[in-house]
Amino acid sequence: MANGFRTQRRIEFADTDAAGIAHFSSFFRLMEAAEHELLRSVGLSVFLRDDEGAISFPRVRAACDFRAALRFEDVADIDVRIERIGRTSVTYRFAFSRDGEPIATGEIVAVCCRVGQDAPPRAIELPKWIADKLRPFVDAATSE
Amino acid sequence: MANGFRTQRRIEFADTDAAGIAHFSSFFRLMEAAEHELLRSVGLSVFLRDDEGAISFPRVRAACDFRAALRFEDVADIDVRIERIGRTSVTYRFAFSRDGEPIATGEIVAVCCRVGQDAPPRAIELPKWIADKLRPFVDAATSE
Amino acid sequence: MANGFRTQRRIEFADTDAAGIAHFSSFFRLMEAAEHELLRSVGLSVFLRDDEGAISFPRVRAACDFRAALRFEDVADIDVRIERIGRTSVTYRFAFSRDGEPIATGEIVAVCCRVGQDAPPRAIELPKWIADKLRPFVDAATSE
Amino acid sequence: MANGFRTQRRIEFADTDAAGIAHFSSFFRLMEAAEHELLRSVGLSVFLRDDEGAISFPRVRAACDFRAALRFEDVADIDVRIERIGRTSVTYRFAFSRDGEPIATGEIVAVCCRVGQDAPPRAIELPKWIADKLRPFVDAATSE
Repeated sequence: MANGFRTQRRIEFADTDAAGIAHFSSFFRLMEAAEHELLRSVGLSVFLRDDEGAISFPRVRAACDFRAALRFEDVADIDVRIERIGRTSVTYRFAFSRDGEPIATGEIVAVCCRVGQDAPPRAIELPKWIADKLRPFVDAATSE
Repeated sequence: MANGFRTQRRIEFADTDAAGIAHFSSFFRLMEAAEHELLRSVGLSVFLRDDEGAISFPRVRAACDFRAALRFEDVADIDVRIERIGRTSVTYRFAFSRDGEPIATGEIVAVCCRVGQDAPPRAIELPKWIADKLRPFVDAATSE
Repeated sequence: MANGFRTQRRIEFADTDAAGIAHFSSFFRLMEAAEHELLRSVGLSVFLRDDEGAISFPRVRAACDFRAALRFEDVADIDVRIERIGRTSVTYRFAFSRDGEPIATGEIVAVCCRVGQDAPPRAIELPKWIADKLRPFVDAATSE
Repeated sequence: MANGFRTQRRIEFADTDAAGIAHFSSFFRLMEAAEHELLRSVGLSVFLRDDEGAISFPRVRAACDFRAALRFEDVADIDVRIERIGRTSVTYRFAFSRDGEPIATGEIVAVCCRVGQDAPPRAIELPKWIADKLRPFVDAATSE
């Protein structure tokens, strides 16, 4: 994954469930945390401001396929790459592993939105200055 | 508990941890949910508006003492009473039980605050119309 | 949805995030809670025992598509149906709505597993007595 | 805090609530994560095994006093010290700060218990080999 971004997260006790493993919903929190860390690494955030107001990135899709379990105190490697930068959206792909063993793969599609206090989010074209910062993470094989 | 308010919550799988019981942090979520249900029962909410703007109730204290555990699918009775209505704060007391067996007792102290987008919450005197709606839940023995 | 199962959940304050809406990971907790309520309605649970030991249903897939947001104290209707009962797995489909407005649709694929303390879950054929109880929820249009 | 243990945690988006700040229940998850990190630093865990079986540390008390709020992406310093090692229990004290500004203080009392699959936890005397590893974190001023 030439253009990838890798981070790590330890499974906390509160992430586990009575089956003794990380609850499946925890993977979605971890994917989002990894996405935000990628954004921070290039000076971006999920809350941005430009001249016209606030911009945020609500999700229109989140999915995860599980192959193996994570347990309390396991340290997961999380690889993040951007599969696609669309006109208004960014598609992230995630791969969880532990010591090289594949654990899960996931996807989040976030849409660039103008957000305000009292109105629902409204999709806008992804500003060029944001897209330019994300492009290095786009997987070469899948981008045109 | 003559002036009390009782509600119930079922322990969901996501509330449990690898010890097979409801994670201790879940009790705080359940206490808050019970508090909000009490507020709804008299037409209040933790987010209110008056002529001057938005009012909310950040917590300055939360505590819980645990005597026994709750497990997945257990149904907990949660008794709520108001121990004290102060000038700016409301002190709630919670008792968790299961089929009459005491499980845990807790406390939340919430402070009435003027809240806005870009400034920290600022404590204000509890409006009389709010205090009047809460007074029926004050435990007779402890109020003067 | 002739064979469907419907339940309701209120968005609690702890489910919300700084964007003022229910955090996307909350939808996965709510889907699971709805699945478990369906199981309870026919006398099943995600933790079962038969003569050979414990049976549980780890997830191999979870996905959600979001069309609109839920906010604090919103009451969501959650429709659940079973799309497919496989040899070892059950595929659930979920539809979230609020006052008839579509909010989100989701999917969980759970695999019937023999589970123990010290070994990873091992997929087993779905016992007939469990499959028989689930069959009424299978969507007629999609079952063969 | 001569004998203290300090760690850091970043507030993730899923930790926040619709008031725009870290939800108060998140502080309890963060306290526990800091406690476990302290235990790991001396080769301990909240799940231990000795010749007689499994040992764990259920909580009998958890409390937090809040002075200020944490927001998304804030990095909190968490100072942990052990206030008291009792016959069966360990009392932890936590102090949250951000760039030196006090945010919150908390307490967790954990009880050393023999734990098993099908019985409630049973308090046992804290084994000497565990107590010896924890003693360096006991605050000199408060220990006798």
